[in-house]
Amino acid sequence: MDKIVALAKRRGFIYPGSEIYGGIAGFWDYGPLGVEFKKNIKNEWWRHIVQMRDDVVGLDAAIIMNPKVWEASGHTKAFADPLVECKACHKRFRADKTAEIEEHASTHKKPQWTEPKQFNLLTEVFLGITEPKEKAYLRGEITQGVFVNFRNVVDSTRIKIPFGIAQIGKAFRNEITPGNFTFRSREFEQMELEYFVKPGDDKWFDYWKEERMGWYKSLGMNSLRFRDHEPHERAHYARFATDIEYEAPFGWSEFEGIHHRGDFDLKNHKLTYEDYTPWVIETSGGVDRAALFFLVDAYHEEEKRVILKLHPKLAPVKVAVFPLVANKPQLVDKAQSIFRELKKYLIVSWDDRGNIGKRYLAQDEVGTPWCVTVDYATLDDDTVTVRDRDTTKQERVSIGNLVQYFQEKLV
Amino acid sequence: MDKIVALAKRRGFIYPGSEIYGGIAGFWDYGPLGVEFKKNIKNEWWRHIVQMRDDVVGLDAAIIMNPKVWEASGHTKAFADPLVECKACHKRFRADKTAEIEEHASTHKKPQWTEPKQFNLLTEVFLGITEPKEKAYLRGEITQGVFVNFRNVVDSTRIKIPFGIAQIGKAFRNEITPGNFTFRSREFEQMELEYFVKPGDDKWFDYWKEERMGWYKSLGMNSLRFRDHEPHERAHYARFATDIEYEAPFGWSEFEGIHHRGDFDLKNHKLTYEDYTPWVIETSGGVDRAALFFLVDAYHEEEKRVILKLHPKLAPVKVAVFPLVANKPQLVDKAQSIFRELKKYLIVSWDDRGNIGKRYLAQDEVGTPWCVTVDYATLDDDTVTVRDRDTTKQERVSIGNLVQYFQEKLV
Repeated sequence: MDKIVALAKRRGFIYPGSEIYGGIAGFWDYGPLGVEFKKNIKNEWWRHIVQMRDDVVGLDAAIIMNPKVWEASGHTKAFADPLVECKACHKRFRADKTAEIEEHASTHKKPQWTEPKQFNLLTEVFLGITEPKEKAYLRGEITQGVFVNFRNVVDSTRIKIPFGIAQIGKAFRNEITPGNFTFRSREFEQMELEYFVKPGDDKWFDYWKEERMGWYKSLGMNSLRFRDHEPHERAHYARFATDIEYEAPFGWSEFEGIHHRGDFDLKNHKLTYEDYTPWVIETSGGVDRAALFFLVDAYHEEEKRVILKLHPKLAPVKVAVFPLVANKPQLVDKAQSIFRELKKYLIVSWDDRGNIGKRYLAQDEVGTPWCVTVDYATLDDDTVTVRDRDTTKQERVSIGNLVQYFQEKLV
Repeated sequence: MDKIVALAKRRGFIYPGSEIYGGIAGFWDYGPLGVEFKKNIKNEWWRHIVQMRDDVVGLDAAIIMNPKVWEASGHTKAFADPLVECKACHKRFRADKTAEIEEHASTHKKPQWTEPKQFNLLTEVFLGITEPKEKAYLRGEITQGVFVNFRNVVDSTRIKIPFGIAQIGKAFRNEITPGNFTFRSREFEQMELEYFVKPGDDKWFDYWKEERMGWYKSLGMNSLRFRDHEPHERAHYARFATDIEYEAPFGWSEFEGIHHRGDFDLKNHKLTYEDYTPWVIETSGGVDRAALFFLVDAYHEEEKRVILKLHPKLAPVKVAVFPLVANKPQLVDKAQSIFRELKKYLIVSWDDRGNIGKRYLAQDEVGTPWCVTVDYATLDDDTVTVRDRDTTKQERVSIGNLVQYFQEKLV
């Protein structure tokens, strides 16, 4: 895990938030490669869930909502984790995180804990221009923005049940113990689908379980499993719930949940469709968690190199273009013209420093699937070498076919 | 303006935030068409500013930062608007918004105002697990996330001055009087470039002025002007500043600023590059404002139809596919197969309700540039009609060429 954190910072995937001011617990910034990588995950999700389907439309609701939303949804009362305090040093922990509790207990001879109390995770924000200002909340989940707009979406699209509303956006939780790099942070992004079905139409729960697992697998993620929630760990309103977990260096960890929420939410908000209250199947994924696990899963060490074996669709840079040597203007000019052309279609990077071998290694480490080298043969026959990240094999491709060559690999 | 607001809600561009709970001043939600439209603006900006250039990299910093950032940047003291209160009814207003002040004054016989006092616009948020919680701020501008990461970006990319860091993300201001639809809201999205240059290298200010104006024009926006700030209205640190304004129904209105910030910011954060403090040229655009003005500018009424003449790159739906009639399975099947194929590449919509004329009108109103109709001739010769939104002219195109036909129009 330390290697991932170091690589992420050194190569510009993820930086600690506000680092030059000593940081801030639970907040992270995405660097030049991280922003492209995360965008690729979100775009692939959107394409798969919204663009390619007929039964799902998108939404982008505000982060701050009328506080009545959070009262109606039950969050002001029930959106809480159990908190305990160590009586010796007054540090506070989540009572349900056994490993962290035990680790801390081992630092004291005779650990004693307070009784668990419920700690609300909603982040309070103050608005308005008269004192005292009015309390509102940063959304603790993006879900409620969908329910509140249910009527508007049905009216403006005339879409018919079964249908879904998809959304990607930031949410905030005042976590008791942020930790494990970006895994448990206080500001994070979610990608969620709320899928509305007729009451009793349970088949969609299994359908979406398989769909979501299939999506992660299709993008190359390994070491995945479902973990069904036991009845006692489900929210009181949930009919079924399953987590998709990844085997992270810190143990099996949930990064997407598929929840059968029944009619709980729409009833809370007094919303109906025709003459009934639809049931809701939710798929709720953490974008930052997915990004973290895609990174961890892609990280490979070989004897002479580190490779991020990211799926080409997710790789932040698709192609790197090199002139064989930097001091031959003919090679540089040719390489530059290829670079410019490819940039119209793809995120492409340029490198003319050091020798080719080192440039390959630098690209392997950030997951660039293909490197294009302009060499002396190029000047004769207008072909270049395309080197594959995973196999390291090279093939010669005609310059005129390059755009299509990469586009076909990215479909 | 009322027509735009009504259309935006009725067709699913923009809904009032938390509407079913009485709304919340200054917050708006983007519906199924709005989310695609806004995404198109952001993607075009990113493609133009980051992907196509060699001298700009991207970033995505957190919304919440260590509060020391806002002290160092000067925001906790100086990020304020002048507020006055009407002595008769105690309503509060921005003292510098003359029109609003005068309008209110006219409702009282003898209006009297309090002396203006500075009202800080930073939105306060409370974090942590011990009482009292720690005060932090929602970022009032996305800019500071760039400066705070300046060192990290330089180290991880080895990029050389002149270079820029681009970012898109949400910011929050506790506005005194939110208003004019989405124009002045409390939660909004910015698209910004901070471009770092050698001290004295002033030419980049004019360069970016022209670049940014050119970008809006290239996407079809009319009624634009520059408005240079007078020395007295510039921030004390700004060497030059220009607004790009649009002639909105509520008057000429700023939606992007180009600011020559000198070395003010990096000095605040004690940051240098090699042995000097770079100067910064900033281009700061409001995504929601740009979206609003693209919509307003595109809105046209003709005798028999309303058209959104959005640039095809910005249109939320690129193509609508229709079977000429809904009760001929051969036509429907053919149209469905075209619909499925196009959906792999573009946001496409389907309509088989009512007559073709009404379907065209429904697409015109949301700015869909092209409608594809499968008719009886299609069954003979595998061609379809493609109808252009603006000219209403139709041409027959071979089904096999359709993807390429649209892709070429969207380059």
